Formats: sequence, C-alpha cells, structure tokens
Amino acid sequence: MEVALTPLEFARRARRIYPDREAVVDGELRLTYAQFLGRCDRWSGALSRLGVGVGDRVVVIAPNTHGMLEQFYAVPQIGAIVVPLNYRLTGADFKYMIEHCAPAVVCVHADYIQTVEGLRGELTGVRHFVALTGSGPGWLDYESTLAAGAADFSRPVIDEDDVLSINYTSGTTSRPKGVMITHRNAWMNTVGTLVHNPMGAGERYLWTLPMFHANGWTYVWTVTAAGGTHVCLAKVDAAAVYSLVNRERVTMLSAAPTVLIAIANGPQAGRRDLRRGVRVATGGAPPAAATIQRIEGELGWVITQFYGLTETAPMILVCESRPRDAALSGDELATHKARQGVELITSGQIRVLDEGDREVPADGSTLGEIVVRGNVVMKGYYNDPQATATALRGGWFHTGDAAVVHPDGYVEIRDRFKDVIISGGENISSIELEGVLLAHPSVLEAAVVGMAHAKWGETPVAHVVLRAESAATEEQLRQHCRERLAGFKVPTQVRFVTELPKTATGKIQKYVLRKQLSAIHRQ
Amino acid sequence: MEVALTPLEFARRARRIYPDREAVVDGELRLTYAQFLGRCDRWSGALSRLGVGVGDRVVVIAPNTHGMLEQFYAVPQIGAIVVPLNYRLTGADFKYMIEHCAPAVVCVHADYIQTVEGLRGELTGVRHFVALTGSGPGWLDYESTLAAGAADFSRPVIDEDDVLSINYTSGTTSRPKGVMITHRNAWMNTVGTLVHNPMGAGERYLWTLPMFHANGWTYVWTVTAAGGTHVCLAKVDAAAVYSLVNRERVTMLSAAPTVLIAIANGPQAGRRDLRRGVRVATGGAPPAAATIQRIEGELGWVITQFYGLTETAPMILVCESRPRDAALSGDELATHKARQGVELITSGQIRVLDEGDREVPADGSTLGEIVVRGNVVMKGYYNDPQATATALRGGWFHTGDAAVVHPDGYVEIRDRFKDVIISGGENISSIELEGVLLAHPSVLEAAVVGMAHAKWGETPVAHVVLRAESAATEEQLRQHCRERLAGFKVPTQVRFVTELPKTATGKIQKYVLRKQLSAIHRQ
Repeated sequence: MEVALTPLEFARRARRIYPDREAVVDGELRLTYAQFLGRCDRWSGALSRLGVGVGDRVVVIAPNTHGMLEQFYAVPQIGAIVVPLNYRLTGADFKYMIEHCAPAVVCVHADYIQTVEGLRGELTGVRHFVALTGSGPGWLDYESTLAAGAADFSRPVIDEDDVLSINYTSGTTSRPKGVMITHRNAWMNTVGTLVHNPMGAGERYLWTLPMFHANGWTYVWTVTAAGGTHVCLAKVDAAAVYSLVNRERVTMLSAAPTVLIAIANGPQAGRRDLRRGVRVATGGAPPAAATIQRIEGELGWVITQFYGLTETAPMILVCESRPRDAALSGDELATHKARQGVELITSGQIRVLDEGDREVPADGSTLGEIVVRGNVVMKGYYNDPQATATALRGGWFHTGDAAVVHPDGYVEIRDRFKDVIISGGENISSIELEGVLLAHPSVLEAAVVGMAHAKWGETPVAHVVLRAESAATEEQLRQHCRERLAGFKVPTQVRFVTELPKTATGKIQKYVLRKQLSAIHRQ
Repeated sequence: MEVALTPLEFARRARRIYPDREAVVDGELRLTYAQFLGRCDRWSGALSRLGVGVGDRVVVIAPNTHGMLEQFYAVPQIGAIVVPLNYRLTGADFKYMIEHCAPAVVCVHADYIQTVEGLRGELTGVRHFVALTGSGPGWLDYESTLAAGAADFSRPVIDEDDVLSINYTSGTTSRPKGVMITHRNAWMNTVGTLVHNPMGAGERYLWTLPMFHANGWTYVWTVTAAGGTHVCLAKVDAAAVYSLVNRERVTMLSAAPTVLIAIANGPQAGRRDLRRGVRVATGGAPPAAATIQRIEGELGWVITQFYGLTETAPMILVCESRPRDAALSGDELATHKARQGVELITSGQIRVLDEGDREVPADGSTLGEIVVRGNVVMKGYYNDPQATATALRGGWFHTGDAAVVHPDGYVEIRDRFKDVIISGGENISSIELEGVLLAHPSVLEAAVVGMAHAKWGETPVAHVVLRAESAATEEQLRQHCRERLAGFKVPTQVRFVTELPKTATGKIQKYVLRKQLSAIHRQ
C-alpha cells in the first residue's frame, strides 16, 4: 500500500487539487497548474519519443524560467534524471560535466546556445540538443516540439531510492562532483522545508535563488506541494526584485546573504514602497547578524536561516525560533538568527565532531566538523566511488564545515575547514571577523582570508566593499575590530575593493582572494 | 545512510534540542524534555528487565496522564508494540482485546484497576500487571519500579515498516479489530499534521482528545516533534478546559465536534475571559457548519478540520484553506470548513469511487466511497488476514464512508455507508440533515437515523438535544427542515432526548438509536 516518497507525488496532488490556481508567472506568461503540468506531460511525451528512458540523463542549462522549471517534472516522471548545470560556468566546465554524466539530451536557454554550440562537435554522445528559447542549427525547438506532441508516455514505477537529479558541486577546489539526489532525499527536504517554513494558501514565491542550485533548495517542488505560485526571475537585480515583489504580491523568496545585501542596497526609490512582511529563507553561506538586521529593519522582511550542502538535498540545520526569542533585543535576535541552528525534523542526525570523532562540548567555542546521517544524505557521487567512500566514511557524510555548538544546542559555522586561519597556533574564524566588519556602518561586504606569514604562520587579511557614499580608513576598521575582538584576530591588512569574486550562488570565492594575495606576496 | 522513519526520531531530536523546555504538565507535575524522556528511558529499562522484548505487546488503559504518554515512547524504543485501549469500554471488552493481542504486560490507571483485577484470573498469558497510579494486590507499582530502575536497555534497529502500535477499532458493528500502525505510518501522520497545522516555538497543546484514540491522532509524538508542551487533562469537562486553557496559556487542542459543542456550552462565567485564538484541530466525526461557526464566533478559536480513520494513522483529508476563503462571509466560510477537504501531502492518494470503481464526478451530489492508498495506510488487522484482505482489496483501503466531491475538489462526507437512509429509492444523508437541525438556534445536538417503513423502506428520524433554556416543538423543527431541504428528507419524527449515546471519542452511536427505534417499532 505504500507509495514511493517522490516529489512527483506533489505534482499529482497539485494537478488534482489546484488545477485552476496560478502555478507559474514568467514575464507575460501565466500558467495554471493544469496548464503547467499539461506542458510537462507533453514534454515528457516528446522526450519519450526522442528515446529518453529510465535512468537516462537530461542536462539543462537555463536561468529561472518556466522552461527550466518544467524539466524538474517532465524528466523524472519518465524515470530519467535531471541534471541542472550552473549556467554561469564556462564552456570548458559545461563540457566536463556533460561528458561526465553522458546525457541523452541537453536543453539550453538562448543565452547559452552559442557556448554549447561551440562544444557540439566534441559532445558526440548527446543525441539531441534542445533550444528552450532561441535557436541553433540542427537544434530542436522546445516550444514547437512540445506543442506538436501528445502527452503519451508511460510513468515507470519509481523506487524512492532511485536517482532523481544529479547536481554538480561548485568545484572550487577540484573537479565538480555529480551529487546523486534520490526521490526520497528530495521529498524529505521538501516536506522538512514546509514544516520549518510553512506555506499557507496563496503563497507567491519569487525565484531569486537559481533553480540549478540544489534544485532551488527543492523549492522547484515545495511551491507546487503547497499550491503556491512560482514567480520566475531570470536575472536578479534589486530593481527587478522590487518591481516583481510589488506587482506579483510576492510573499516568499530564498536568497544567499550576498543577494540579500544587493537587494537591501538597491535604488532608494524602489525600496520606499516595497511590500513588507516578505518571508525570506536564506542559506548557501552564513549571513552576518548585521545583514539580517539590515534586511529585517530596513525592508521589514522576516528571515529564517537554513544550512545545508548539495550533498544533503540540501537542508540539515534551521535556525528555529525559540520561545525566549520574543524577549530579545533586535541586536540579540539578529545575533541568534545568524546561527545555523538545529536539525530539521527531516534531516536526520547531526553531530559536530572533534578530530577524535567525539562530539565537541556545547561551549560556543570548541571547533568541530559537522557530520550528518539520514534521509537527506545523497546516494553518492555519480561515477565516483572513491570520492563517495571518502565523503560518507563511517556511515556519516562529512561536510568539511567547522562549527561550534552553543550552550542552547544551536550550531554556528565558523568556517569551511580550509578557510580557518591559523595564526600563532590560534584558530581565527573568517566568518566571525567578517561579521564584525559588516557591523560597521560603512561596510557593505567583507571577506577575510589568511595570508602566509613568516612568524605567525598566517595572518588575517580583510577585503572590504564600502557602501555607496560611505568612507572608512584601514585604521578605522582595524580599530573597530580591536574594540570587539581579541588582538590576534584583528586583520593585519584591510584591502578596499569594488567587488568580491563570487560563485553563481552568491558564495564568495575565497580561493580567488588567496591567489591574489599570494601573487602579491611573491612579487 | 538512511534513518528509519519513526516517531522515536522526534524524541531523539527533542532530547538533543529541547532538553530544558517544558515537555509535560500533569496537575502539579511539570517535566522538562530531559526529565520526561529520562523517565521513559527508566521505564524502558524496567520493561526490559521484566522480559519485554522486540515484538511483544504492552497494553495500556489510562486517561490522558503523563504515565499514559510515557508508554508511547518507553514501549516502542525497546522494539515492543504499544496497545492503548479505550478506557471507557467494559471489562468484557478489555478481556476480549487483551486475549486477542496477548500482551506481556498490562499497565492500568487507578480508575480501571478494579475492573482489570476482576479479569486477572482469566488473563493467564499476561506476565505483569502494572498500576500506573493506585495499586492492586500483586500489581507492580509504576512509579517505584521506574524510580528504582536504571535506563539500561538496548535500542533495537527499527525497520520503518515494523509495527509501532495496535489500535483497536471501536467495534460498534462487530468485534474490535486491532489496527497495526507502523513506525512509517505514524511518522507520516505526524509530519503531515505539522505541515497542515504548523506548530511554532512554544506551543502548548491541551490533551482534550483521548491519547488512545489513534494515538491521539499522533499528537503524542507531534507535540514532541515541535518541542511543544503536553498539557494533560484526564477528564474533559468545559470548566476544566477553561481553567487549563487560561492557566497554562494553551495555544492548540484537538477534539471531536461533540466535545467542541460541550466546550462551547459550558458555564458562562468561565467562557467570558477565555483565552482567544486557540487553534483547534477537529476530527473523528464531521462537524456541522453551525458548530464551527459557534466555536469560532463565540470563543474566537480557529478550527481546522481533518478526516481520517484508525486504519489510516489516521489523517487522509484536511480542509485546507484556499486563497478565495478570505472573501467569504462567516456563513459561507463555516459551510466550507465543514467539508472534509483534500489530501494531505503525506496521506497518499484518495479517490471517491462509485459501485463500478469509477471516480464520481465533482458535482457535489454523486455519492461514492472514499478509498486511499499510501504511506499512512495500516499494515493490516492484527491476526486477522481475512478482514485485512477485505479492507485492503485491490490495493486500496476502503473506508466505508460515503462522500461527494465538490466542484473545487473538496470531499464532503455524507455518511457511513451503513448510516445512509434510503427512502423511496432516494439517498438521504443523515449528516446533511443533522447539519440543518444544528443550524436551528434551539438545537444543541442532533442525530438522524433511518427507521423501517412499510411503504418507503426507511424514513429519517431525528433525535435532538435542546440547548439549555431553549424550546422547540417537533413541528417547528420539521418546518425548519422543510424550508431548507427536499420534502423527502424532512424527518418523519423528531424525538427530544436529554443526551445522545456516544463512544469514548465523542462519536454518536447510531446503532444504539436504531436499536431503540426498532424496539419501539416492534411494540
């Protein structure tokens, strides 16, 4: 009598219960759930006729558009595996990932057709290239193929441990790895997200988070499960966000902290009448307390932080509110909300372990590595048994994130282990230091990395973007840090920059900053 | 890497995250989660030493007390099966069920010790009788056994399809059947309940619903999953509810409609200052729109209706709010809220089938039977393969409930199939007729059953309890019905009674009314 745990069940339910509700808004296009899922069915039919079957991979390279969203339904419901690539990567990256997962079909948005077209000669295993928008020589046209086809395809029986998607890691330190997310993994994350960030009737979700990023943290399915509306946004800039939030009566969105900073610092004119009360799920990188306070204070939006990794479908911690939070000041609350928090009820078991695999004390200072086992942990890395065995050693997934546990049990990330700065034998958390810098009124963004130092091993170097029409000197910022931190944590250098290098998902690329520093160092 | 879906995971998580939160209030006793789960562990240790092991049954007969609640944790975490009996049944019923499930241990609250003591000579298979409160000759004392013991027991590996509890059906028409609920079933219902009736920080849940009833609709675990407080209440009367709601700052409760009616009609004095905004999950029987309006209007509480059966863990429908509801009048909204609604995202697939196993049209009038398949459907009836095969025939659980589907997809129960009145070939829904009677200002409660009739086959007979200090004549009530219903639905008789026969869970026992009528008929 059991039914497999799969996000496809949310689509089945939505089709039954919400056929006339608005499912998707994409520019001028508006689709009800009946229309949207009908389109998915016709594309499933077309893919079947193109020979795509159970276990085949379908790559998609597209920004947040209805055509992108449709792949998350049309591909898995024929038993195939959806592989959404980060569209901001280079042609060489695309080539590596496409060769690695060997898809039957590659679907591409107009903006990336030229890049992929340049690779076609080398991608001999791919049977069909599909232009989701735009066109290319010998490419199938998505809309006309879909329109011509019938929804005649067979729905294979899904086992909940079957692979639903392959999501490539960002690959900042090594080749991207293909994370295999199962139907059960994604179902869990969807339901856990709904428990910890509930959605009521008529929610309207703005797609500021890229859908390729851990399947848009599973909101590609979560919004559908709740019968909400997907409001697509292909290119995030503050003015576009303001305009859509108001015009489409947006109630929820998700975004990395850097994206939130950009939204909070957009044109004053658009901000003045901006709809308040929008609920924001943030994640992808730890937000500074100052960022949270700015968004909540200036925009009147409400932030909930989630923490996770592509390998964990992705959410494993949520900064759940506590009864005592009502009594906190704005400062104290923002400091609490900047912590990554506690297990979701769906995420399984989380521990923070020291080098001897013992749990660290809940003292808010002892560093350990976050590990997790449970129903959101990936099946493994695609075609990479060795990396899989390493990541899942001992039956736990090892996140590589260094964290402390506070006395109330809330976990706070201090760094990627590789980003911890070790100075004179002391650990310095770059995230803690960045949090202090961001609390300075003139600082818009900050990134701290370690620089090799003959005597101390490493010393912290800050990279700072100032807010528009603000000013600060290096000495002022060092003084600001000195008043708030132990002496050895004060940056030995503050470098003022106009922007920070970032990944497509808004994470700061510290390895780029470290490379720049070592280049300077070598001069 | 997967972790079994089991409510025991909620306890593990609560112990880790909420150790200092108030878990249980029971009279003067207050326990934090660390204390409460520590007690459960010591009782698990004691049960182990008493020889209770994997797959053994432990029967419990007790009202809503901390000792009752503890069984839902202490028993399953040693791999045993908890069997909570309806304490309002007779000694003969207890004997039947205890012999049927052959438990190793029977735990009994003081109020029922005498009854069970009277059966002891016949219950030779039971190894230990435990007095949860009170005492009996040769009975183990719960508190001293628990206090003396250590929490030394081994936690077996749980398979999510293992049986967690056996819950006996009410057995109004036949012998009670033992519904086997798996760990996965209960986990699903808990999480589904949290999605559709979210719990935030610091919720305080009043135990008006008996914990034995489908495991208190799984709130025995749901409250713990959310880190809320279980406020125990052994005996429900309106004055006690008013007092606890205010004193304990209750935010949520669950109750059958008849219990809600009793609460809404309690002493005026207590009602005046009653805390408003309490969220109420109702279920167990279809509430009349008039009841919903009375509770929401007079008490300022907010009702969400769920529908389910013991066999489905139990929830399979929820009257989910819709975007359009905001525009409805109070009357219209109450009428909508009186419908059972739509699938939960966890409940699996629901259909309403006609006699040819085809789905009925969504016309709000064609009757069909509700069937369900999915992750909340029981494993089967304990030691009853034949009843199991009948109930689960064709891979679907057959509810025996007759319902219509409205054009918006919302399901509305019209009757148990056996309660449908067939008069001159026309179906009359007793629930529809009761809803009309309840809308009359003088009517407190109503129950309609069919009486044999030479010409029409059956005719509807109404049983009515009037509100205090109200009056109505039979003709007035028939006139009230005549103005609102087709002529053939108007009750041929209205019988005024001072109370209606009810099950322990507040369901009206129509078979008792039918028996009385046929006795009169025979005279």
